[in-house]
Amino acid sequence: MAVWNKLKEYAHVMNNPEKSLKNLLISQDRLKNFSQKGGSIFYDYSRQRVDEKAMELLFELSIERKIQDQFNDMMSGKKINNTEKRAVLHTACRSFSDEPIYVDGKDIMPDIAKVREATQKFTNKVHMGEIRAANGKPFTDVVVIGIGGSYLGAEFVKYALAFFADKNIKLHFLSNVDINNFGEIVREIKTETTLWIIISKSYTTAETTANEKQAYAFMKEKGIDPARHVITVTSKGSPGDDPSNPVIAAFHMFDFIGGRYSVTSAVGGVPLSLYIGYDKFERFLKGAEEMDIHTRKAPVQNNLPMISALISIWNNNFLKYSAQGIIPYAQPLSKLAPHIQQLYMESNGKYVTKKGEKVFEDTGVIIFGEPGTNAQHSFFQLAHQGRAFPIDFIGVIKPQYNQYNNKSKGVTNHQELWANLIAQPMALAIGKEDKDMAKYFPGNRPSSTILLEDLSPENIGRLLSFYEAKTVYEAFIWDINPFDQFGVELGKKLAENLRKEMAAKNENLNHEFTNVDPISKFYLDKLTEGKI
Amino acid sequence: MAVWNKLKEYAHVMNNPEKSLKNLLISQDRLKNFSQKGGSIFYDYSRQRVDEKAMELLFELSIERKIQDQFNDMMSGKKINNTEKRAVLHTACRSFSDEPIYVDGKDIMPDIAKVREATQKFTNKVHMGEIRAANGKPFTDVVVIGIGGSYLGAEFVKYALAFFADKNIKLHFLSNVDINNFGEIVREIKTETTLWIIISKSYTTAETTANEKQAYAFMKEKGIDPARHVITVTSKGSPGDDPSNPVIAAFHMFDFIGGRYSVTSAVGGVPLSLYIGYDKFERFLKGAEEMDIHTRKAPVQNNLPMISALISIWNNNFLKYSAQGIIPYAQPLSKLAPHIQQLYMESNGKYVTKKGEKVFEDTGVIIFGEPGTNAQHSFFQLAHQGRAFPIDFIGVIKPQYNQYNNKSKGVTNHQELWANLIAQPMALAIGKEDKDMAKYFPGNRPSSTILLEDLSPENIGRLLSFYEAKTVYEAFIWDINPFDQFGVELGKKLAENLRKEMAAKNENLNHEFTNVDPISKFYLDKLTEGKI
Repeated sequence: MAVWNKLKEYAHVMNNPEKSLKNLLISQDRLKNFSQKGGSIFYDYSRQRVDEKAMELLFELSIERKIQDQFNDMMSGKKINNTEKRAVLHTACRSFSDEPIYVDGKDIMPDIAKVREATQKFTNKVHMGEIRAANGKPFTDVVVIGIGGSYLGAEFVKYALAFFADKNIKLHFLSNVDINNFGEIVREIKTETTLWIIISKSYTTAETTANEKQAYAFMKEKGIDPARHVITVTSKGSPGDDPSNPVIAAFHMFDFIGGRYSVTSAVGGVPLSLYIGYDKFERFLKGAEEMDIHTRKAPVQNNLPMISALISIWNNNFLKYSAQGIIPYAQPLSKLAPHIQQLYMESNGKYVTKKGEKVFEDTGVIIFGEPGTNAQHSFFQLAHQGRAFPIDFIGVIKPQYNQYNNKSKGVTNHQELWANLIAQPMALAIGKEDKDMAKYFPGNRPSSTILLEDLSPENIGRLLSFYEAKTVYEAFIWDINPFDQFGVELGKKLAENLRKEMAAKNENLNHEFTNVDPISKFYLDKLTEGKI
Repeated sequence: MAVWNKLKEYAHVMNNPEKSLKNLLISQDRLKNFSQKGGSIFYDYSRQRVDEKAMELLFELSIERKIQDQFNDMMSGKKINNTEKRAVLHTACRSFSDEPIYVDGKDIMPDIAKVREATQKFTNKVHMGEIRAANGKPFTDVVVIGIGGSYLGAEFVKYALAFFADKNIKLHFLSNVDINNFGEIVREIKTETTLWIIISKSYTTAETTANEKQAYAFMKEKGIDPARHVITVTSKGSPGDDPSNPVIAAFHMFDFIGGRYSVTSAVGGVPLSLYIGYDKFERFLKGAEEMDIHTRKAPVQNNLPMISALISIWNNNFLKYSAQGIIPYAQPLSKLAPHIQQLYMESNGKYVTKKGEKVFEDTGVIIFGEPGTNAQHSFFQLAHQGRAFPIDFIGVIKPQYNQYNNKSKGVTNHQELWANLIAQPMALAIGKEDKDMAKYFPGNRPSSTILLEDLSPENIGRLLSFYEAKTVYEAFIWDINPFDQFGVELGKKLAENLRKEMAAKNENLNHEFTNVDPISKFYLDKLTEGKI
């Protein structure tokens, strides 16, 4: 507890006006001293509300809590997911090293390599036209049926790497059980040449099952043979891996890969390889691997995810900011925030430590974001003059589509984008005095700036691995388990009870909803009546 | 101040365990006493942390602060946007009454009717094939160039009403100055049959100008005549309304309609009428008008936006929640949260009162959200067991696409969706005891449930007007101006300076970035070098 209390005290010092960002930024060496390059990413925390002493204490905290040792345990296959008694090996999915990783005495690397090879072979065959739709034509559309961790990561990468999609395949995500999601997708696809991918580890997720059954009913109605139009990504031996239910191919998931950490497994691998080609997907994996190695090996003072996690803890538990913005100045990263929102909030929105005791401080913050400059014209009024929240700005040095380089006001659109990317963190940090209080900017609002050289598959992999590592590092500091999600169980259980009531009503129109509380009854009745 | 202090004291009472939601919900009349129907929408606040006394005090506050009088002033054309000395008349855009509204002694209703008529005529001509692309073919794609308030509202309605899009026109939004946004859109459109709509009140927004110029350069390269492929929505006499720059048509905006409140003006009207037809757009307006009338006329105790605004203030300023989730259980409402995020955070993220004094309490909260059930598989772990935040759940009784009604586990997908919609607010409210602390749910987490009968254009209009009114009601309580946005000026000014530096470098490669601070210089150099 010693370091934690020292940090608490030091937060008072940093709240002092002479420690404001405006003053800290007077130092000509500020950027040099508060930035770091690693895993081919540049991380600038010069506009965070820290000084040398604060960082020193934070690094001390990371050592006291043995954060890097825990990361090492994770990558080595130890069962650090204690509540579910599982290893946590999403990093193994992108390991191309020869080093074995043992779980229960068995090297799991050959199984992982096998899935990667199967993905490569299968998707190449689709692209070469060796695997085609039942009507003999090449597949034109791929619909992924999956929700949460079986959806958001692949969606993020789809948008990030859409530039590379040259396979004449459109990729759709049927995640929501809302029938509108299904209806909108079937309006867009070419039914006869659509490949459906059903992704579910347990193959029992209610939404995915409902959408799978709806898709099968739809195929039946259209006279399409699912055995030639469906593939699955699921655990070995799950209902989705049942030979009596024939599909073109089944790809395996492993219990040591959690849903929200699964985009580098077959969950992302199969749809993304179909969309951009396996070679690009492998480049994405290799970028993630590079950042994993940096995270595991770099000393804490030079370790990007570590610095970022420590600052996040500092902003949350000591400076008391309760939310965090993620603002990539890159339209292709438009789905980064929704993915990290899940990754982080599901991992770190926890109530108890690994020992089962109430956590002594607030855990994860709320994550939200939109791309810049769009966000500037949306919620940045509040960021500058309302309730303050820290921001991760993300910049990309080289744009895709740089053939479009018309100039307006003497600069290209990419330069205009960068003028804003450079201006915003500074404006938030330094603020502005004004006699007219409506034009006064309090400043002292913290942010980091993360730079990628370009939107290559490698860099998207690096960025993903960076946020995954930052997320688990924070959990390690609080000593919570970032790999379970018992918090979603109660809602599921109540929904199950309501589903049974609805099913009873479907069976027998005279069924009355007398087994539920009066509010639930009111809603069940409304739905039955079909009007307000 | 009297009522405010009473509320502060009463918050202590409500924080008492016997006032927990679990206990409040024991009352059989809870829903009856804490729900309201109005403007064809149902609003249930039975799972908010209020009792009769709390509501009584809140209603007292609304009367003390003359909230409804201020709303009436707004709708009557008074210049309540005091810092910019403007009337605020987005409600006039959807008024179909004969009542005149005077601004500076002139009835503005004929001008508004004229724009609506022009929108109807123009879009009908496009749909009838009387206005066509230069190559004689019907338009297939519409690209809206606009950002912030000229974009988010129309995007929200586009997704909400996509079901009705039967005009064979695809609608795209080019908002971000990031060239990737442009590049991705031109990959998708049919260049020869694309209509560009440039939307900017002042016609000086940097991003919109840059994208306009890029679009013109692109048309020139492709040999397309802008005079036959461009329309504008802008203020009378702005650079976009210049006859020397010929376009097919120009639609007027008025200075009494702010960007983020402009979706019912030509800003939404022109693109949405092209997409779904003017008749559907007018139905959307009529729904909004109905809710405007409810908001203006209904007594505070029965007034939906009023109740919702008061509860929002209660949650924010008295119970100290700093964020608010918006979770529509309807995939077509997937862009509601981003729109309300802008509407609310730009309106209410303020530092000073209308008198120019620092606001005495925290103003607007952070708004974020994703559709349910997707959100359940994303950040609901945190909602149940982490940092609490209030939620607006939104349910739709009748789905679109109800021809797809396959059953899974005895229920349709729409019923499955509703089982979750009913379960979640209850799970959050009542929680669950468990000896295993990892499975313990603290409960007492507040939410409202809003019901729409269906996703008709009218209901989307009602929902929009509901949130617009809620937003301004909250501002009226704090006595801030929700119609200006001086908080975005500082960033713009710094960006302008950086743009000049970049332009100087474009002109002269030997230009050195010596006029800027060392951190900005670092980034300017990185961009010039083109590598990390």
